[in-house]
Amino acid sequence: MSHRVGIAGYRGYSGEELVHLLGFHSGIEPVLLEHRADSADRPLPRGEQPPLRIPCTRDAALAEGLDAVALATPPEVSMELAKTFLDAGLKVVDLSGAFRLKTLDEYKRWYPEEHTAPGWLAKAAYGLPEFYRETIPQAQLVANPGCYPTAANLALAPLLAAGAIDRSAGIVCDAKSGVSGAGRKPSLKTAFCEVTENFSCYSLLNHRHVPEVLQNSGLEEHEFSFTAHLLPIDRGILETIYFRGVNIESAQDLIAIYERRYENEPFVRLYDPGQVPDIRSAQRTNYCDIGVKYDPKTRRGVIVSVIDNLVKGAAGQALQNLNLILGYEETDGPF
Amino acid sequence: MSHRVGIAGYRGYSGEELVHLLGFHSGIEPVLLEHRADSADRPLPRGEQPPLRIPCTRDAALAEGLDAVALATPPEVSMELAKTFLDAGLKVVDLSGAFRLKTLDEYKRWYPEEHTAPGWLAKAAYGLPEFYRETIPQAQLVANPGCYPTAANLALAPLLAAGAIDRSAGIVCDAKSGVSGAGRKPSLKTAFCEVTENFSCYSLLNHRHVPEVLQNSGLEEHEFSFTAHLLPIDRGILETIYFRGVNIESAQDLIAIYERRYENEPFVRLYDPGQVPDIRSAQRTNYCDIGVKYDPKTRRGVIVSVIDNLVKGAAGQALQNLNLILGYEETDGPF
Amino acid sequence: MSHRVGIAGYRGYSGEELVHLLGFHSGIEPVLLEHRADSADRPLPRGEQPPLRIPCTRDAALAEGLDAVALATPPEVSMELAKTFLDAGLKVVDLSGAFRLKTLDEYKRWYPEEHTAPGWLAKAAYGLPEFYRETIPQAQLVANPGCYPTAANLALAPLLAAGAIDRSAGIVCDAKSGVSGAGRKPSLKTAFCEVTENFSCYSLLNHRHVPEVLQNSGLEEHEFSFTAHLLPIDRGILETIYFRGVNIESAQDLIAIYERRYENEPFVRLYDPGQVPDIRSAQRTNYCDIGVKYDPKTRRGVIVSVIDNLVKGAAGQALQNLNLILGYEETDGPF
Amino acid sequence: MSHRVGIAGYRGYSGEELVHLLGFHSGIEPVLLEHRADSADRPLPRGEQPPLRIPCTRDAALAEGLDAVALATPPEVSMELAKTFLDAGLKVVDLSGAFRLKTLDEYKRWYPEEHTAPGWLAKAAYGLPEFYRETIPQAQLVANPGCYPTAANLALAPLLAAGAIDRSAGIVCDAKSGVSGAGRKPSLKTAFCEVTENFSCYSLLNHRHVPEVLQNSGLEEHEFSFTAHLLPIDRGILETIYFRGVNIESAQDLIAIYERRYENEPFVRLYDPGQVPDIRSAQRTNYCDIGVKYDPKTRRGVIVSVIDNLVKGAAGQALQNLNLILGYEETDGPF
Repeated sequence: MSHRVGIAGYRGYSGEELVHLLGFHSGIEPVLLEHRADSADRPLPRGEQPPLRIPCTRDAALAEGLDAVALATPPEVSMELAKTFLDAGLKVVDLSGAFRLKTLDEYKRWYPEEHTAPGWLAKAAYGLPEFYRETIPQAQLVANPGCYPTAANLALAPLLAAGAIDRSAGIVCDAKSGVSGAGRKPSLKTAFCEVTENFSCYSLLNHRHVPEVLQNSGLEEHEFSFTAHLLPIDRGILETIYFRGVNIESAQDLIAIYERRYENEPFVRLYDPGQVPDIRSAQRTNYCDIGVKYDPKTRRGVIVSVIDNLVKGAAGQALQNLNLILGYEETDGPF
Repeated sequence: MSHRVGIAGYRGYSGEELVHLLGFHSGIEPVLLEHRADSADRPLPRGEQPPLRIPCTRDAALAEGLDAVALATPPEVSMELAKTFLDAGLKVVDLSGAFRLKTLDEYKRWYPEEHTAPGWLAKAAYGLPEFYRETIPQAQLVANPGCYPTAANLALAPLLAAGAIDRSAGIVCDAKSGVSGAGRKPSLKTAFCEVTENFSCYSLLNHRHVPEVLQNSGLEEHEFSFTAHLLPIDRGILETIYFRGVNIESAQDLIAIYERRYENEPFVRLYDPGQVPDIRSAQRTNYCDIGVKYDPKTRRGVIVSVIDNLVKGAAGQALQNLNLILGYEETDGPF
Repeated sequence: MSHRVGIAGYRGYSGEELVHLLGFHSGIEPVLLEHRADSADRPLPRGEQPPLRIPCTRDAALAEGLDAVALATPPEVSMELAKTFLDAGLKVVDLSGAFRLKTLDEYKRWYPEEHTAPGWLAKAAYGLPEFYRETIPQAQLVANPGCYPTAANLALAPLLAAGAIDRSAGIVCDAKSGVSGAGRKPSLKTAFCEVTENFSCYSLLNHRHVPEVLQNSGLEEHEFSFTAHLLPIDRGILETIYFRGVNIESAQDLIAIYERRYENEPFVRLYDPGQVPDIRSAQRTNYCDIGVKYDPKTRRGVIVSVIDNLVKGAAGQALQNLNLILGYEETDGPF
Repeated sequence: MSHRVGIAGYRGYSGEELVHLLGFHSGIEPVLLEHRADSADRPLPRGEQPPLRIPCTRDAALAEGLDAVALATPPEVSMELAKTFLDAGLKVVDLSGAFRLKTLDEYKRWYPEEHTAPGWLAKAAYGLPEFYRETIPQAQLVANPGCYPTAANLALAPLLAAGAIDRSAGIVCDAKSGVSGAGRKPSLKTAFCEVTENFSCYSLLNHRHVPEVLQNSGLEEHEFSFTAHLLPIDRGILETIYFRGVNIESAQDLIAIYERRYENEPFVRLYDPGQVPDIRSAQRTNYCDIGVKYDPKTRRGVIVSVIDNLVKGAAGQALQNLNLILGYEETDGPF
């Protein structure tokens, strides 16, 4: 089997990671879509050939026989490119937030940019394979999930479904991410001297990833407090999630719920009761690593959920979705 | 005015910081107490003289005319040294956790080491000057607060006193600290290669700093969830604190409560509603910096409280306490 | 005594450091010169007042009674501003490379930007007080030295003057700098994710700081090899300098040469033979720290010279120069 | 084909890396040799099985049918273990410095520990496959090269062989390494708070890796100055090497010499004239990346040579050697 997948935004961190992952794939060849010559490429060793690079246009995509396109571009760019390639009959996996929310009203509430392809919002599949593995292959457009919601949804969904969480007490999700989550475009906020030996929070109570959690978990806004923080590291997300338990006697009870839900999932790993992963556990992998601690006397529970924001939180999950829509094993790649 | 203060554990990060701060004091001369020759000193430039160094004994302390002793040592060492110097009539500021809890029962619940000076637990003043400025000067022994509780108590006390927090919903304190908080003794957990590009949590639901918050805030254990995390930075603590508000219309209401409480406090700084400090704001200062965000519709509130763990969280606060017990202006020093 | 010094480029790292240092000065008040509103200011705690801010113009400078101006701006900006303020009769300390080389030919060889104030090249004093303390006070324009040349010149000059170095074998200066040396303007090269866990060299054999070393040491280009490297740290420079010795029996001989030259210098510190400083030794200080190792059998010598690029390498040295031209003690400040 | 290789010191950074690499090998199964239960293992996700673990003894090795043993242990441990397993007829690849020097006199000059297996010094092959690919397969004991000499020898040998370097002017090798090169044993020197935002040099003019360069390059001590520096990063080595050229007209001439020598080498990569690699170029790879800059007018040349100290500088090169002695393709592995 053999396919060609175009990658727009291949110079960004997520796009670059996807090109890297596809280098180990059994059947997909990456093709670079040159959208803007906005930054110089890294010098390559002599003799090393980068993948084929073509213009980021409908005609070039069709001429080169692309089967699908992955968009690792900002939302406002993704909207335009998605239309172009969807209209040309190609399948599209979009890594931005452009198509993750189901309705235009929801979109408008959280994103400032006008939506130029609102007709696709309802048609896009939400590309979290652990939840929507059945519907993703039928979709022409897959909205790859945000990094924070991936870690939060995988941690919360099984416990909510099992009724193990007292929603009335509220859930707190305190999220910390490496800097690559902010993208490769230079800015003062992500400059080395501003980040090193520092730690900060941003988008308090109004981060645009929140509605992705609500939409997929059934939680309401007043039940879910979320804060994003910027870690002085390159890559990785750790979320510390606090809840009040219902009918839970021990951390083992929580692990048992997770194990029933995730026993056949290749990319979710669990830890023994009381043990929790650190960011390194999942760095440069496509795993979501989950551990819990629980105090039955006070019903306080803590979940620690860890992913690599560039892999399971972006390019790795995009590759799961590409595998699903092109007919490969979901685990095909360097996983 | 002129005093001499002995410093035990001067090679540790807190002790070293205290020696550094005293270099700028108007009246206090630091004297190094040589307890164990356990690690080499840094090479000094030619001609530079370190402070006087004497044995860490009762006789040497009396012979050199020390007025007080600061103990920057682990709890089990502090207990012994505190007895020695208190019995000799000296004033003592202890930076460890040995004397922070009021009763032996409380102590036993959270600390594994046997207490060898339990008679001093009830007599020690808790050295948070913003709360106990009146009683500290009368005490012979001052228990310098833990770093995490300093940031948490200063953030929570005014809002709890004003009835602005719905305690039934629980308070979450998600705390992140630089590595110097773990001390200078080499260990795998604090080795560079384990910490860099990593982030982890520890002591979930049972950190020994929790009872210091409960004891000084009146909160009960089931109302307060606390997790400590290790940041890949040298120094600084940021705590993100989540609560449900009562009779609060806006972040401005919360700031107003803080301003009434802290208007004359030299070491607490507030930010405009919706703005929050990052760790750099307070690094290498004795400030506790506090900002808030609030959503009146859902009553979700977030406090961000930042200190430098080695200054306001240790040596700087110890110097406030030394100033109080020796009769200096509380702000005397390089603050 | 009381003076006002305007600071252009006060949002950059060097300018910000100079404003910070002046906060501790006995007589100089900093005034911010608003040149371009190009980046947002950091949020300040409530009640905290920044220094006076005025337009960066001749008229405003005269109206506010400025005595001198410090330019922490890029060379092409410094040329223009220097002319403006020099023509108005003010003294100027320029922290850029605009006026460090003595002739226009030299300037043209190393700098791409056209020089718009070439008449001032010969009139500017080179602001390395340890070498030119006598002439600086007479100058209206002081060219503050580059960070790399400061560390190199202080390390090399005494040994060259004493004939202790075999110039025919060549001198190698391998220099490593923290990222703040590249300025605050966001760029991909100084973005966190590009710098962390990385290390790189740049400007091999043609760094524009090289002629500052040649001009002040008398070395010729073929005798001096220099490479700049980017360290994944905020601030600090360490230069490892290799030479072949002449008539030197031991590291002690080298230290003796330094001590004779620097015995009255407040900002140069030496280490015992065989001991060398690390970057932390000089961080956040105005010191240049120097240590040496020597092998008499093979005549191989190594000098390690360390400064903080923002202090002795920029703002601290600028303050030495301001002190000299305004009549203060050279050591006035928080040194 | 199928082999079992025991790994002593598998908890250290090099040993851990070798276990990791063997996880991707076509025929070699790693077996952990439990030498001392000196540090806790990282918590594993539920269901994940570590490799087989057996005692680090002759009997266990024979009982489990090991074909070879890799020693990722300190020199004094490696000597003892090497004897044990060599006497039992197993092949041994030693990653320490115990067997890298050819004579006991040389060993004694640079290493303080007494050598307890001196008879093997002359018999050990020096495991730099690019130089000794023919002799390594015949050896029972392979001394895996030091990390610094690997980068230096690969950079210098072709130019020295071609007569392109003026040895009389001396060669300077300024080497910078990540902290993992110092091993996993906790020490103050490698503690996070000592290393972050710092940079230091060590072993000036007497680093024990120097004789490995001399022995394999033919250089004499007085011709080669070497300084090791500690970078605040986890892994990677960059060496900046300075020389005076002979009969070289341009950087292209130097690249041409390298290309002739390395055209069939899978693990050496070259850069276009004037371009040089940074540490990231080779991180987590088995490559040695080499770039050069040259100024024909002054005959000053600079080589930049980069490796990952844990891969090409340790475990990756050890796997090349295991492949050679067990009959696999040298490139078998995740390279």
